[in-house]
Amino acid sequence: MGRWEPGARERLVVAAVDLFTEQGYDATTVAQIAERAGVTKSTFFRYFPDKRELLVAGQETLSRLLTEGIAEAPDDAGPLEVVAAGLERASTALGPESRELAPRLKAAVAASSELRERDALKSVGLAAAMTAALVARGVPDPTAALASEFGVLAFKRGYAEWSEGDRDAGDELAGYVLAALDELRAASASLG
Amino acid sequence: MGRWEPGARERLVVAAVDLFTEQGYDATTVAQIAERAGVTKSTFFRYFPDKRELLVAGQETLSRLLTEGIAEAPDDAGPLEVVAAGLERASTALGPESRELAPRLKAAVAASSELRERDALKSVGLAAAMTAALVARGVPDPTAALASEFGVLAFKRGYAEWSEGDRDAGDELAGYVLAALDELRAASASLG
Repeated sequence: MGRWEPGARERLVVAAVDLFTEQGYDATTVAQIAERAGVTKSTFFRYFPDKRELLVAGQETLSRLLTEGIAEAPDDAGPLEVVAAGLERASTALGPESRELAPRLKAAVAASSELRERDALKSVGLAAAMTAALVARGVPDPTAALASEFGVLAFKRGYAEWSEGDRDAGDELAGYVLAALDELRAASASLG
Repeated sequence: MGRWEPGARERLVVAAVDLFTEQGYDATTVAQIAERAGVTKSTFFRYFPDKRELLVAGQETLSRLLTEGIAEAPDDAGPLEVVAAGLERASTALGPESRELAPRLKAAVAASSELRERDALKSVGLAAAMTAALVARGVPDPTAALASEFGVLAFKRGYAEWSEGDRDAGDELAGYVLAALDELRAASASLG
């Protein structure tokens, strides 16, 4: 093990997104990302198995926070309230730096089929984590599966609004995600 | 162009799924798939760009049928009825051969992270196709996005039930998918 690198993980993510934007995902190497971040290649591999995983590195954290928030919601909460508790907890994982990075990250994902696929799998993974946590609380199938889809859609929509909004405002992701969930809940009444 | 190969596409898919099951996705080459199917490599490439696309080759067909079914639903149908019309049309794309192949296909996808990712992107693509078709009918956002998630979940759940069921029964996918959609609609009342 080399010495601890303060902020190396964040610098690697920013360097990767910048390089993907400048020269494309396929043309970018791990060596270039490490150099731009001012770390060695072996430091890169202490944090990430490869360049693709770097962009979804937050997935385990999000899944863990979703699961914790869902597990700790009040016993008498309905399925969507429970999902809201999970989303609120998970939203704490993304701060101002994530917001700053979001437009470039979005462009990089949109430009690479490999990253689009990995991003799609991330959504599926988050839905599965929520469903498992809801089932563990006793929410029956298919209510748990459906509530999880509301949750993933709310998280995506809230994140999109937040990352496109005024980044000086200092408002937090959770508010956007919970507003999106409320909007979806209201829309569900008009499904017919 | 070589001569027309009757059933070559279907034989290639079956050969690929068998080889993926026998020896793994990574170890299987296009040359092996073509040989097993009794066609040349250039015939393979007339149908598919690579071995990964082979397993999601039905995606464009499904998207087209979903879009057509949604466009042609009665004017006074509610969003979920419209989605049901799309799902019913799309279900016609998968017949007894697909059902026969489904358990091996599922095993092959489960065993390969690359195929899981491609499969996840397929779900995202089908949801996007449904959302676009619903918006084209005048269904407002986010109702359209939500109805599409109901549709994708119903299609996945119905397909799973159908492919695990008694394959001699001759019953069609559409019935399973529409029953799954009804079940989700009923479950949505208990979301809280």
